[in-house]
Amino acid sequence: MPKPSLDYLFNPTSIAIAGVSPDAARPNLAQLFVSTLRNFGFKGEIYPLHPSGGELFGTKVYTNVREIPGPVDYVISAIPARFTPQLITDCVAKGVKAVHLFTSGYGEIEDEIGKKLEGEILKIARKGGMRLVGPNCMGLYNPSSGLTFAGDFPDQIGFPRQSGSLGLISQSGGNCIYTIREAAGRGVFFSKAISYGNAADLNETDYLEYMAEDAQTKLIAMYIEGVRDGKRFMQALKNLAGKKPVIINKGGNTETGARACASHTGSLAGSAAIWHDLIKQVGAIPAGSISELVDMGVAFLKMKVPNGRNTVVIGTGGGIAVQASDDITGAGLDLPILPLEVRKKLVAIYGTEAGSIFRNPVDAPPMASVEKYVEAVKAIAESDQVDVLILHCPFDIWAMVSRSLPLRPFIETVAVLAKVIDKPMAAVLHYDTNSGSRQMVEDVQKKFVDLGLPVYPSIQRAATAINKYIEYYERLRGENRLSRVSGSKRKAC
Amino acid sequence: MPKPSLDYLFNPTSIAIAGVSPDAARPNLAQLFVSTLRNFGFKGEIYPLHPSGGELFGTKVYTNVREIPGPVDYVISAIPARFTPQLITDCVAKGVKAVHLFTSGYGEIEDEIGKKLEGEILKIARKGGMRLVGPNCMGLYNPSSGLTFAGDFPDQIGFPRQSGSLGLISQSGGNCIYTIREAAGRGVFFSKAISYGNAADLNETDYLEYMAEDAQTKLIAMYIEGVRDGKRFMQALKNLAGKKPVIINKGGNTETGARACASHTGSLAGSAAIWHDLIKQVGAIPAGSISELVDMGVAFLKMKVPNGRNTVVIGTGGGIAVQASDDITGAGLDLPILPLEVRKKLVAIYGTEAGSIFRNPVDAPPMASVEKYVEAVKAIAESDQVDVLILHCPFDIWAMVSRSLPLRPFIETVAVLAKVIDKPMAAVLHYDTNSGSRQMVEDVQKKFVDLGLPVYPSIQRAATAINKYIEYYERLRGENRLSRVSGSKRKAC
Repeated sequence: MPKPSLDYLFNPTSIAIAGVSPDAARPNLAQLFVSTLRNFGFKGEIYPLHPSGGELFGTKVYTNVREIPGPVDYVISAIPARFTPQLITDCVAKGVKAVHLFTSGYGEIEDEIGKKLEGEILKIARKGGMRLVGPNCMGLYNPSSGLTFAGDFPDQIGFPRQSGSLGLISQSGGNCIYTIREAAGRGVFFSKAISYGNAADLNETDYLEYMAEDAQTKLIAMYIEGVRDGKRFMQALKNLAGKKPVIINKGGNTETGARACASHTGSLAGSAAIWHDLIKQVGAIPAGSISELVDMGVAFLKMKVPNGRNTVVIGTGGGIAVQASDDITGAGLDLPILPLEVRKKLVAIYGTEAGSIFRNPVDAPPMASVEKYVEAVKAIAESDQVDVLILHCPFDIWAMVSRSLPLRPFIETVAVLAKVIDKPMAAVLHYDTNSGSRQMVEDVQKKFVDLGLPVYPSIQRAATAINKYIEYYERLRGENRLSRVSGSKRKAC
Repeated sequence: MPKPSLDYLFNPTSIAIAGVSPDAARPNLAQLFVSTLRNFGFKGEIYPLHPSGGELFGTKVYTNVREIPGPVDYVISAIPARFTPQLITDCVAKGVKAVHLFTSGYGEIEDEIGKKLEGEILKIARKGGMRLVGPNCMGLYNPSSGLTFAGDFPDQIGFPRQSGSLGLISQSGGNCIYTIREAAGRGVFFSKAISYGNAADLNETDYLEYMAEDAQTKLIAMYIEGVRDGKRFMQALKNLAGKKPVIINKGGNTETGARACASHTGSLAGSAAIWHDLIKQVGAIPAGSISELVDMGVAFLKMKVPNGRNTVVIGTGGGIAVQASDDITGAGLDLPILPLEVRKKLVAIYGTEAGSIFRNPVDAPPMASVEKYVEAVKAIAESDQVDVLILHCPFDIWAMVSRSLPLRPFIETVAVLAKVIDKPMAAVLHYDTNSGSRQMVEDVQKKFVDLGLPVYPSIQRAATAINKYIEYYERLRGENRLSRVSGSKRKAC
C-alpha cells in the first residue's frame, strides 16, 4: 500500500526546533518542545537552534538550520514572526520538507503587517517547494512515532502514548488538547492529531485527505473555524461518505463567535445552519461543540450500532428520572414504557414497586442489592423492545448513601453486566462539584473505561451522541428513522 | 415578629422515628435518621420506635408513639405503607403536630391501592388536626436547628451545618440533595430546605408561604413536578413579587418527562412553555434545570446586580474564546469589542498583541505574568463600557502547562483582584474528566469560593444565570433590556 502523501509530516526522521533557549535553567516554549519530544520517545534526531549556539542537554545548539550536518525533515519554529522569513529561506536552502510555525502574529492580527508577513513566508515556501503547517498553531501529535506537543499521559500535563483509531484535525490548539485528553480519559485514543491554526499553506482539506488515506484512522473528528477552499473541502467529504465517518464541529455560530474566529485564526466563519445542512448533505456529521466531538467518538468507537432508538434508563432517584426523560426525548431518542412482561419480571425480582419505578426510566437502587440489579438489567436487555441501555449513576446523590451502600459490589456487578449484556449499553456518571462525588466518579470511570463501557457525564450528552450515531447509519443505509415506538412524537416546549 | 405558621415543622422540640431497627449492628434507613440527627446536632429529644422495643444507642426504643412520656412534635415514618394508617391514628391520639412520611407506596404507584391508602391517611390526619409532610419524600433540613436527612458536610455523605439565606422547596429528594451539596460547594448555604414528595396534605404553596414569611430566607428556589392548587400557588407568587425572588425549575417538560413525574410523585405535569410564561407573569423566575437553580442562586447571592449586559471574558485559548463568544451571546448577554483606549492599554501592558487577542474575549495567558494579568483586568474593569467580568480558567488546557507556569501566583492574583475590582465579576473553572485538571479545579474552586467569588463550571452556565439575574431586576424596575451595545442583535443559528 502506498504511503499517504503527507506521511513525511507525521513520520519525520529528524526535527530541528528554532528559538530554543540554550540554558537548561531558563526554559522557554521551544526548549519545552525539545524535552517533550525526547521524553515522549521520538526516535529521530532532534536539533535545537538558537542564534547564540552553545549546548543543551548534551546536544549541540546550531545557530542556523543550514549548519546541521544531516538531513532535516521538519522544523518547528517558535521564534518571533518578524524573523521567520529568514528562517523559511534557510529551511528551503537546507531542503527541509515542512516547517511548523508555532509562531503567531500573522493573518490573525488585525493590522496589515501580520497579513503581509504571512503572504511573504508563504511565497518563499511555495517557491522552494516546502510546505507550511500553521502558522499560529500547536502542531502534530502521532503517538506511534513519538511526535507530540504535550508531555506524557497520565502525567497531569500530557497526551497518551497509546495509539488508537481516531484522527483529529483541529484549527484550535486548545480544543485539540481538550479533545485528546478528554477522549483518552474515556478510553478513546488517537491515530494522529493536528492543531493547524491559520492554514496559510496546508489546510483542513489537505489534512482531511491525509486522514482519509491513513489506514490507522477509522474515524475523523474536525474542529473548524473557517474553510480555505469550500468546494474542494466538500468534495473531499463526499469522497469519504460511506467509507469513514467524519464528525465536524464548526466554531463561530454567532456574530461574536465569528468575530472571535477572525481574531483567533483569521478565518471568516459562515452561518451555522448553512454549515450543518451542507455538511450533512455530503455525508458528514455536524457536532454542536468540541465536547460533542468527544461524546460521538465514544459512541462510534466503543458502542455497537443500536437497532433502533428504544432506550431504557436504569438509575436512581425520581427527580433525576424526570430530567433524564426530558433529556432522552429532547435528544431524539425514544423512551418507551417497559413492556408489561418486563415490568412483571421486575416486580418479581424486587418484590414490590413501592419506592421504585419500573416504567422507564427504571428507578431501582443498584447498590441495595447487586444480585437484583443484575437480574433486573438482564430482564430489560432480553426484551426485543429494547435497543439501548443506559446505566445512570448519579454520584451527586450516591455520595450521600455511600456509607450504608458500598460501591465496590456495584462496580463488580457492572463488570459482570459488561460481559453478558449483548445490547448497546452506556454508563452515565454525574456528580456535583464536591470532592466526595468527584473522587468516586473518577475511580468508577477508570474501571468502567477499562471494561470497555462507553461513559458519559450526563444523560443529555449520552443521548445526543447516541442519537446522532444511529442517525448516521440510518442515512448510510438510506433508511427511515429507526423508530419502533408509535405515538412517541416529541412535544415542542 | 410573629413566627411563620409552619415554624413548628422546621423547629420541632422532639422527634419520634418509626421503623428503627433496634439492633445497632443491623442499621436500616430509620436507624440512619436517628444517628444522622444526633451527629448533626439536633438538640431536642429523639425517640426511636419499633414494635419489638428494646434499646438503641443507650436510649429506650418505644413500641408505640403513645407510650412516649413527653410531648412529641414531629414523627418520621419509615415503615411500610400498609402499616401507616395505624401509625397516623396513634400520632393523632398522642397529639403529634406533624408526620413526615419517608414511606412510599401511595399515590405515585400506578395501581389503585396506593392512591386509596394516601386518601385514607390524609382523612385520619385531617380529622385529627395533624399535618402530613410527603408521603414519599426525604423531609426537612434546617441547619440552625440541627434538623437534617443527610449527615455532616464536608463529610462525603452530607449537608453543611452552616446556615445561609437560600430556602429550597423540592418535590424530589434527589434533586434536593444535589442542589444543597452543589450550592454548598460553591459557597451558597441554606436557611431551610424541604423535599416534599407527593404533597398529599402540605403542598408547595404551604411551604412557599412559609419561606415567604421566614426572615432568614432571602431567596427561594423550587423544584416542582406538579402543582396541587394552581390558583393559590400563583397568588402566593404574586404576593412575593418584588419582595423575595423565587426561582422555579419545573420538571417534566416532555411527554416522557411528564410520565416520569406521574411515576415519581403522582403529579400531572403541564406544558413547559405555558409554565414559563405563567411564572414570569407573576414575577417569578423560570430555571431550565436544577443545575440552573444552583447557578442562579450563586448569581443572586454572591454577585452585585450588573448595570448592563456588556460582558468581557478574560481567558486563554483562541478556540475556547470562539465557544465562549457563542455561549455568551447565545445566553443573551452582550460581548462588545473592547473600546480602543482599553485595547491600547492592553498592548502597552503586554508589549504586543501577537499570540494574544485583545478584542473580547481577551486571550491573555494569566500565568505567564501575574502582574500583567492584574494590570490588564484592572484596565478592563475601569472602562465604563464594561458591566460584567468573567475570568475564564480552562483547566483542561492549563493542566498541560502547569509544569512551566505555576498556579499559586495566579490564585494569589485573583485574591488581589477580588478585593480591588468593584464590578460584578465571576470565575469560570472548567476541566476535562482526567484527574489532573479535576484536582486543580477542586483546589482552586475552594479558594475562589473563600474569596467570595461566584464560580461556574462553564461560560454557558455563567452567562445564562447572569442574564436571568439582570432580567429579573429589569422587570422589577419596569425597565427595558439593559443593553448599551447597538447592533449586537443575536443571529438565529
